[in-house]
Amino acid sequence: MIRIAVDAMGGDHAPDEIVAGAALALSASPQMAVHLVGQQSALESLVATADQTVRDRISIVPASEVIGNDEAPAIAVRRKKDASIVVATRLLKEGHVQALVTAGSTGAFMAAGLLVLGRLPGVGRPALAPVLPTVDGKGVVLLDVGANMDATPDHLLQYAIMGSVYAEQVLGRSQPRVGLLNVGLEPGKGNMAVKEAYEMLVDQSINFVGNIEARDLLAGHADVVVVDGFTGNVVLKFMEGMAASLFAMMKDEFIRDWRSKLGAGLLRPALRRLKDSLDYSEYGGAPLLGVKQAMIKCHGSSRARAIANGLQQAQRFVENRSSEVMAQAIAARRVKGEN
Amino acid sequence: MIRIAVDAMGGDHAPDEIVAGAALALSASPQMAVHLVGQQSALESLVATADQTVRDRISIVPASEVIGNDEAPAIAVRRKKDASIVVATRLLKEGHVQALVTAGSTGAFMAAGLLVLGRLPGVGRPALAPVLPTVDGKGVVLLDVGANMDATPDHLLQYAIMGSVYAEQVLGRSQPRVGLLNVGLEPGKGNMAVKEAYEMLVDQSINFVGNIEARDLLAGHADVVVVDGFTGNVVLKFMEGMAASLFAMMKDEFIRDWRSKLGAGLLRPALRRLKDSLDYSEYGGAPLLGVKQAMIKCHGSSRARAIANGLQQAQRFVENRSSEVMAQAIAARRVKGEN
Repeated sequence: MIRIAVDAMGGDHAPDEIVAGAALALSASPQMAVHLVGQQSALESLVATADQTVRDRISIVPASEVIGNDEAPAIAVRRKKDASIVVATRLLKEGHVQALVTAGSTGAFMAAGLLVLGRLPGVGRPALAPVLPTVDGKGVVLLDVGANMDATPDHLLQYAIMGSVYAEQVLGRSQPRVGLLNVGLEPGKGNMAVKEAYEMLVDQSINFVGNIEARDLLAGHADVVVVDGFTGNVVLKFMEGMAASLFAMMKDEFIRDWRSKLGAGLLRPALRRLKDSLDYSEYGGAPLLGVKQAMIKCHGSSRARAIANGLQQAQRFVENRSSEVMAQAIAARRVKGEN
Repeated sequence: MIRIAVDAMGGDHAPDEIVAGAALALSASPQMAVHLVGQQSALESLVATADQTVRDRISIVPASEVIGNDEAPAIAVRRKKDASIVVATRLLKEGHVQALVTAGSTGAFMAAGLLVLGRLPGVGRPALAPVLPTVDGKGVVLLDVGANMDATPDHLLQYAIMGSVYAEQVLGRSQPRVGLLNVGLEPGKGNMAVKEAYEMLVDQSINFVGNIEARDLLAGHADVVVVDGFTGNVVLKFMEGMAASLFAMMKDEFIRDWRSKLGAGLLRPALRRLKDSLDYSEYGGAPLLGVKQAMIKCHGSSRARAIANGLQQAQRFVENRSSEVMAQAIAARRVKGEN
C-alpha cells in the first residue's frame, strides 16, 4: 500500500474538489491510501458520500489552520504548526505517508519541504519542476521555476540529473533529452553560471542535448530544460501573463464588428481547445525535486481530475523510489577536477 | 542638420527597403541627412529614383562586406574592416555622423558599439533596449535584452537611469515609471543582484515604481522595466517563440472542421490586427544605451516604414543630446556608502 498525504485545505476549490480528486485516484489505484489533512468535520461530511471501497482507504488527519497565498511562507510555516500543509509534511517526515500532494500556496509548499522535511543527501538546492505545454502535446519539464534564486553551476547540473530521473520514471520518457535554457545554441553562450554548467553537463551520463533557445522552449526539442530559479520563474509567469493578455486582446478584437462576432461564435470550440492546450495545470502537478520524499504541487485552480493526476504522479514517484535514485545519481555525478 | 549613418546592407529586405525607409524619413524631416553605407553601385541606382529634395541629403559611403547573423560578432567586427556596420560605426566615431541605424545582425551591432565606438564615460555596460507591446498599445522599454550577460546591481541601476532618460526624451513619456522585473511584488524578492538593485533604486531621483512581476510585463504598469541581459534575452525570445507557436496552433485548430474554417475566414481581419499588435518591430528600433552616440537596431524583418521610424528615433536622440544627459544622470546617481 502506498500512503499519500493530501492537503485538503489548499487551492481555489478546497476542500470539495480536493476530496473528490482523492476519491477519483483511489478508485483507479487499489494500492493507494490517502490521509486527508484539514478541518475534520468538513472533511468527514465530504468523505461520507464516497464509495465504501474508497472510504476504507481514507483517513482524516485534523489540522485547524491554513496558510494563504498572501502570507510570508517561511514565517507562516514556522508559526502555524497546525496548518494543513505543515501537518501533512510532518506526516511525511515521520514516515506515516510516503508522498504529499497540495494545491495550496506554492511558497508554503516549498518552505515546508525545506524547513520541515529537508533535503536529500547530496542535494544543494531543491527545484520546482512543472511541465509546460509544447506544440507536440507531450510537454516539457522546466526546472527550477523559483525554489532557489541564485543557482550555481553545480545546482544547474543537479537539476539536470533530477529532472532526467523524474522525466524517465514518473513521466515515462525513455532516455530523456535534457537541455540548458540559453540565449543561443552554440556552446560558450550565456552568463557565467550557464557557461560553466554547460561544460559540466557534457561530461555526465544523462542525455544532454545542449542549449535550448527560449524561442524553442515550447517546441518539444527537449524533455527537460534546466534554468536558474529566477529566470525560470520569470518565464513561467510571463507565459501565464502573455496567454491571459492574448485571450483578452482576442476578445476585444472579436467583438469589434458583426463579421468578427459571427466568426468568433463559430470558432468557440476551437478557441476552447486552444485555451485548454495552453493550460499547463492539465499536465499534472509540479514536484519539488531534491527534498527527501515525493512532494507534488498542483495548480491552485485544480479540480478533481488535476488532483487525481497529482496523486498518480506521487504514486509513480514512490513506486520507482525516485528520491533514492536521484540521490544516487547526484552522488555519482562527475564534478570538475575529480575522476 | 542631423546626420545619420544607415547600414544599407543589413536586414532581410536590404538594401531596397532600407533605402526606401531613408527616403521616407528624409522627406518627413527636412533637418535630416543620411549616409547610406554599402555596395556603391546598388545604392546609387536605388537612390537615383528618389526625389531631388531627398537625394540632395543622401551621401553614399562604400563598404564592400556584410556581417551575417551566423558569424561570431566580435571576431567578424574585428576582421571585416570594410563591413557596412563597421564602416557606419567608424563614421559615428569620427564625427561624420551623429547617429547610426541598422537592421543587420544584432550581435555585430552590439560588438561594433562596444569595440569601435566605445562606452559613455561612467557606464559599466551598455544595454539593448527594445520596446515590447503592451495591452494599452503604448509599449514598454525592456532593458537589457542581451548586451551584458552578468549584470551587477550597479549595472541594473544604470539601466534604470538610461532607460528613464530614453523613455522621456525619445519616446515622449513624462516622468517615466521605472520597474524592476522580479518574481514577486514585495521588496526583498529575487536573486542577490536584484535585491541589492532594489535597495539602490529606491534611493534615486527616477520614478521607481518597484517590482514588476513577469505576468504583468505586458500589462502597461511601467514605461521602463529593468532586467539582467540573460533573463531579458530569454523573455524576449520566449515571447517571439510563444507568439509563433500560438499562431501555428491556431492555424491547426482553425482548419479542423468546416465550422472552424468558416469562423477563421470571417475573423481574418481581426487575427491580422492581433498579429500586428504583437509584432514589437512596429514599436520602432532598439537603442544600444550606454555607448558614446545614438545607435539604433531595427528588427531584421524591417520594411521602409520601420526603418523610417528608427531614423526618427535617432533624430530625437541626437536633438535631445540624450547620450550626454544619460552620462550626467549616471554620474549623479547615488551609490551606497557615498553621500
